[in-house]
Amino acid sequence: MPDKVRIAIDAMGGDHGASVLLPGAEISLIRHPDIEYLLFGNREVVEPLLDRLPRLKAKSKFVHTEVSIRMDDKPSQALRHGRWKSSMWLAIDAVKKGEADVAVSAGNTGALMAIAKFALKTLPGIDRPAIATLFPTRRGDSVMLDLGANLECDAENLVQFALMGDVFARTVLGLVQPTVGLLNVGSEDLKGNDAVRGAAARLRGGMTPIKFHGFVEGDDIAAGTVDVIVTDGFTGNVALKAIEGVAKLFSESLRASFHHSLPARFGYVFARGALKKFAARLDPRRHNGAMFLGLAGIAVKSHGSTDAFGFANAIGVAADLKLNGFLQKIGDELSRLNRAPSPEQSAAL
Amino acid sequence: MPDKVRIAIDAMGGDHGASVLLPGAEISLIRHPDIEYLLFGNREVVEPLLDRLPRLKAKSKFVHTEVSIRMDDKPSQALRHGRWKSSMWLAIDAVKKGEADVAVSAGNTGALMAIAKFALKTLPGIDRPAIATLFPTRRGDSVMLDLGANLECDAENLVQFALMGDVFARTVLGLVQPTVGLLNVGSEDLKGNDAVRGAAARLRGGMTPIKFHGFVEGDDIAAGTVDVIVTDGFTGNVALKAIEGVAKLFSESLRASFHHSLPARFGYVFARGALKKFAARLDPRRHNGAMFLGLAGIAVKSHGSTDAFGFANAIGVAADLKLNGFLQKIGDELSRLNRAPSPEQSAAL
Repeated sequence: MPDKVRIAIDAMGGDHGASVLLPGAEISLIRHPDIEYLLFGNREVVEPLLDRLPRLKAKSKFVHTEVSIRMDDKPSQALRHGRWKSSMWLAIDAVKKGEADVAVSAGNTGALMAIAKFALKTLPGIDRPAIATLFPTRRGDSVMLDLGANLECDAENLVQFALMGDVFARTVLGLVQPTVGLLNVGSEDLKGNDAVRGAAARLRGGMTPIKFHGFVEGDDIAAGTVDVIVTDGFTGNVALKAIEGVAKLFSESLRASFHHSLPARFGYVFARGALKKFAARLDPRRHNGAMFLGLAGIAVKSHGSTDAFGFANAIGVAADLKLNGFLQKIGDELSRLNRAPSPEQSAAL
Repeated sequence: MPDKVRIAIDAMGGDHGASVLLPGAEISLIRHPDIEYLLFGNREVVEPLLDRLPRLKAKSKFVHTEVSIRMDDKPSQALRHGRWKSSMWLAIDAVKKGEADVAVSAGNTGALMAIAKFALKTLPGIDRPAIATLFPTRRGDSVMLDLGANLECDAENLVQFALMGDVFARTVLGLVQPTVGLLNVGSEDLKGNDAVRGAAARLRGGMTPIKFHGFVEGDDIAAGTVDVIVTDGFTGNVALKAIEGVAKLFSESLRASFHHSLPARFGYVFARGALKKFAARLDPRRHNGAMFLGLAGIAVKSHGSTDAFGFANAIGVAADLKLNGFLQKIGDELSRLNRAPSPEQSAAL
């Protein structure tokens, strides 16, 4: 019998709110019938929707709150006393109290990270949490982190991200020995800034269980050269959004090409099946869900603009993290690593 | 009568060497019949090729050298005494001596930048040169810089890049008032690191002639939200290569889709014309040529893996920079700007 997963949902987050999030939660029950939900939100919005989603209602416990975090709230505003009753805060707090295994929100990323850090705290051995996501590559799916939680990172931060990414790839992608690469402007040892060179030196030193590939470049992201791409939050955020932007441009240009002439429209009729497969493979909704790694609890952030199908995928990732024991495994790796002193610690002794 | 352009070519650079570079130079003569070439390279390679390209031969002066910079030479190696006779060095030196208006090489980027900085020096008012390129967007072409010359940049560097990008967009894209954006992880004023926030404050202050749009994000690159995207060399390098990588993945996946089934192949026959137009618009060879901006002379770097068509485009960009008076215009902007003291200078008085 599969394990139960208890998922806390911030039902008020995202651009479209509960009207897409709750149908998404219901879709997830098809793949994971053993999910139990804790839903936080305003009863005037949530209850009428639940009445129309009986399967979801049967699996959910609903908690009313009047407060919600707005999409444009600053992280500092989200931490103010009045917001402690917000749907986002209550979802994270349910994880902290052990009432839920994971929390999922489509709300404001900065606010969610601030609340998650404040309430859940970082794991022993991790200085800063990171945001990770899965994305499609030529070879299959890969993981990239950080995507914006830490704009400036030193070598030690990057090594910790590598470790978290490694465990994530084992847990969610099911890889036995994932390969890890550090994003840089070239592949030679001397390339890059102090942080990436320092992190590479440490990862090459074999002090971690990681299979370190070395430096990778921007075009290695889509090529799937490695299973885990490690970078600082500034570069990761820009690179991921740059990729999303060009994928959108490509899809639109392609669609426009087919409407361009009568023969092209005719060709489209025949090619439609193949093109749909192509589009499905690169559908960003299939890769919705940014994981906050390095905290003593699991929080998953869905794209704010998601639809129900995309939100269901974010819930799916959250369920996988729990079912595959991510927190346990990352804890084991960290304690194994912390028994071996780092070069700085050795030098300080 | 159009002006003459005298172009110095490093005929030994690139993955395929003179056998693609010289045919590329000949292609350029179709668009720019008033180009005159100074070709630097080994006579055993160059002369037999020139005999087969009579139109190019008639427009070229050839200078023999035994020395060439290898694709894997380090910048420091390129500056060694023995390399002063290399084809790359001689091409840059021809610009320095006023024997050529621009230099074009498909060789090693780091070596070319090191030689160009050493020989040509930066313009008064520019601390560091930057590498810029054109790329296709939803709206047309935009410019991005820096792409790897400066991995860490402060606010002042970014402001100088903005200025150079502005003049470049006026000169090469022919825009009257280009819009300039700073690449960041969000569009709100408080987002980002000190360098981007500091640069934004100065660009908003109206001390420059630039039409400053504000912060832009990764997906604004392909969307063409602004005409000029300014960023540090680490982020710019990763973002541009990430875009190239996903464009390649997309093209390959699309081709595979069409071979997937008989109806899809049949559809392709009808859609071929439209698809070719689509591919042509996004053809990276159309956007070959990275410009080194901020030096007291013009140097253009072609992709090392270019074919003749791509190299001809790099030469075309070089010719446009000369014909549209880029160096004169950037000099004018800088001297206008330098008459107004910067906040630091005012504070130091």
